[in-house]
Amino acid sequence: MLDELKEKVFKANLQLVKYGLVVLTWGNVSAIDKKTNLIVIKPSGVAYDIMKASDMVVVDLQGNRVEGELNPSSDTPTHIELYKAFEGIGSIVHTHSSWACSWAQAGCDIPAYGTTHADFANCDIPCARGLTKDEVNSEYEVNTGKVIVEEFSRRSINPEECPAVLIHRHGPFVWGTDPVKAVENALVLEEIAKMASRTQQLAQYGKSSDIGIEQYLLDKHYQRKHGKNAYYGQK
Amino acid sequence: MLDELKEKVFKANLQLVKYGLVVLTWGNVSAIDKKTNLIVIKPSGVAYDIMKASDMVVVDLQGNRVEGELNPSSDTPTHIELYKAFEGIGSIVHTHSSWACSWAQAGCDIPAYGTTHADFANCDIPCARGLTKDEVNSEYEVNTGKVIVEEFSRRSINPEECPAVLIHRHGPFVWGTDPVKAVENALVLEEIAKMASRTQQLAQYGKSSDIGIEQYLLDKHYQRKHGKNAYYGQK
Amino acid sequence: MLDELKEKVFKANLQLVKYGLVVLTWGNVSAIDKKTNLIVIKPSGVAYDIMKASDMVVVDLQGNRVEGELNPSSDTPTHIELYKAFEGIGSIVHTHSSWACSWAQAGCDIPAYGTTHADFANCDIPCARGLTKDEVNSEYEVNTGKVIVEEFSRRSINPEECPAVLIHRHGPFVWGTDPVKAVENALVLEEIAKMASRTQQLAQYGKSSDIGIEQYLLDKHYQRKHGKNAYYGQK
Amino acid sequence: MLDELKEKVFKANLQLVKYGLVVLTWGNVSAIDKKTNLIVIKPSGVAYDIMKASDMVVVDLQGNRVEGELNPSSDTPTHIELYKAFEGIGSIVHTHSSWACSWAQAGCDIPAYGTTHADFANCDIPCARGLTKDEVNSEYEVNTGKVIVEEFSRRSINPEECPAVLIHRHGPFVWGTDPVKAVENALVLEEIAKMASRTQQLAQYGKSSDIGIEQYLLDKHYQRKHGKNAYYGQK
Repeated sequence: MLDELKEKVFKANLQLVKYGLVVLTWGNVSAIDKKTNLIVIKPSGVAYDIMKASDMVVVDLQGNRVEGELNPSSDTPTHIELYKAFEGIGSIVHTHSSWACSWAQAGCDIPAYGTTHADFANCDIPCARGLTKDEVNSEYEVNTGKVIVEEFSRRSINPEECPAVLIHRHGPFVWGTDPVKAVENALVLEEIAKMASRTQQLAQYGKSSDIGIEQYLLDKHYQRKHGKNAYYGQK
Repeated sequence: MLDELKEKVFKANLQLVKYGLVVLTWGNVSAIDKKTNLIVIKPSGVAYDIMKASDMVVVDLQGNRVEGELNPSSDTPTHIELYKAFEGIGSIVHTHSSWACSWAQAGCDIPAYGTTHADFANCDIPCARGLTKDEVNSEYEVNTGKVIVEEFSRRSINPEECPAVLIHRHGPFVWGTDPVKAVENALVLEEIAKMASRTQQLAQYGKSSDIGIEQYLLDKHYQRKHGKNAYYGQK
Repeated sequence: MLDELKEKVFKANLQLVKYGLVVLTWGNVSAIDKKTNLIVIKPSGVAYDIMKASDMVVVDLQGNRVEGELNPSSDTPTHIELYKAFEGIGSIVHTHSSWACSWAQAGCDIPAYGTTHADFANCDIPCARGLTKDEVNSEYEVNTGKVIVEEFSRRSINPEECPAVLIHRHGPFVWGTDPVKAVENALVLEEIAKMASRTQQLAQYGKSSDIGIEQYLLDKHYQRKHGKNAYYGQK
Repeated sequence: MLDELKEKVFKANLQLVKYGLVVLTWGNVSAIDKKTNLIVIKPSGVAYDIMKASDMVVVDLQGNRVEGELNPSSDTPTHIELYKAFEGIGSIVHTHSSWACSWAQAGCDIPAYGTTHADFANCDIPCARGLTKDEVNSEYEVNTGKVIVEEFSRRSINPEECPAVLIHRHGPFVWGTDPVKAVENALVLEEIAKMASRTQQLAQYGKSSDIGIEQYLLDKHYQRKHGKNAYYGQK
């Protein structure tokens, strides 16, 4: 079942390797089939170079395995929480990419410092709070998803206008309309995380440095690419 | 029309990928045909791995599309302003390469710290001011070009002796006599941006550090490569 | 003799190159055959691209060469000390990978800053003291091993729960149950060393930064991957 | 003439590209034939991917071109000064590799922070003073060589025990007994420059950090690899 979606999710997982976003088995991509509300996700701990499209696991929104011999990613409950709360998204990526994880470990939002960021998201990339001891010790992966949803709600962020989040001490979750777009977003997140770190480092030295994008420039770049009257790209 | 130039511009765009200066579709190369004053430029938002030479778009200096099915790069008006003001240049490159963008986001000129820089430009690489709210909200891409031209004029910089500029909170525009040279210059800018950042980091630690090239050494290296009596390379 | 183990050790040595953990001849992998207590190890100073599986050297726990024409790695006595003291390990890797060596040169433990670290080890990665002048000048490589064992004993660290150590001013030794796992651990060490460095750099800038993982989150991630009730991966 | 040496010098130049030490044409390798005192060197400004072994230029110790159609590297007079002063060396490499140049631009010696450095050189890598205005404006490349020789003399450094130098605001010159070894040394210099920078960055954060190798450990590692009783590698 869902063979076409399995193929897309499989290829998107391999694309994580090509983009240099994962080492070993440190990443997973899922996608949801909107008609059936079934989720296709990478199996847990399987090496990318031996993985097949048919190894993808199908689970429902209650976390039950519907098809597949292998265990789904241990992060599956987090994916499910996001699909339940963020209706506009079709695919989710979790990686331990180095720059994004470093920001997550530092516990800092990634500030919008320039137009590369503005082309991606219309606000800072939020770093959600870490989980409490109780949240960690009971349904950890479900609670990870709940904390993300809580953070977007608390800050009134629209997940369709900010396709990524960091979890304090953990790493990024990224999403998009489909697996190709979600993985591209994971790559962009890593790039802006890298640039933002380097920007801050330069600002520590340069006396005349002035960092932080103006709202009007942030809006301009976000809207020219994603708004109603977007004119970036082809129709 | 301009099939030979299209081929050159096409290949130069692919070279951006090879040099690691772009991810996804984050860069564009154009070139001007001096006889006709027509510009050949990358189409907007087209992936490099599916792009063909025949996809290159031809526009005139008023920004009208003269040939091609696809929309030209959304940065086309900026390219046009530069071609109109800087007569000596034949090709322009825009990227979001990481180190150059980080300097742009920090709002700092890239200081001439050594002979690698002096082989490339005979002054610091200027970071032009950001655009005002009005400039962003009306003819943004045209105004980006105007701000660059204004900056070179205000500082009395000869664009043929400094083939690159940063725009605050945005990134670099780089140029050269032809597409091969312009893309090479984009690579060199990224290298000197990286070195300058590392130089400053080392200087924060080293008590005896002494950074900033002397004018006579800057002149010597620039002139031995680019001056009337240049003796670098072959005749 | 031990041809199968030689093949594994040989391939693991080449994997160091593929993972970017070594340049030139800067690394070595060994493995122990538990039945015979014989150790298979890379020959000293042989380039990876001309090395053959049959070049692997067999030594006993007293350091005598049992088979092989070539000299074993000059670090062989360190490997032997670790095999004698840490019974649960089957393979050892030594590299001069850049980030791990930088931490070793700085003389700092790599702090547990996030779940990427917690998936790998249940404590900070210890940086063992440097050797005294006497220890360096007499049986240097044996003493390197003894200092590692002393450090784990002093801190009551279980080497099966922390598969890596740094030696002050030198670099990392890493281990695992077999050569594949030991080399993977060397890669993970390098990744967490890189992330921890970047995390600290970000923390120097961000006023709201909060770094250092809580014990309950460290335990949760370590246990979900390595504990009795681990649920990461397949059975 | 000297076809065998030309082939070696040619291959060594290409190895610079493979090791990631050069972009564009930013590097050159030479070697000296001890019988004839003739030097084989890369032609100036020729791209590595179109260069042939027969393009290598032969010059004598007075800088006269003895064979070859192309201009020799513009750095040829620097190479000649070093061959005249440092009798034990057979090949010289000049690059603008990023980390080494960053140290040169910062004007700092690369301190011996660990055993990776000690395996390479038995002292800090010296950063020679920049040239005066007069030295730059008259026989610049000759004077670059003289300043290097002066620095080694002033500090009583044996060039056979320290195969590299930095020139302030410029970059590294590196040498060895033959082209293969000289290029390997250029790679090692880049690696230790990178590690030393990262070590210093970590030391700025870590309160307990302790950096700088002890003389006895520096001697031990240098001697076990290069001394009379060296036991690293094969006989």
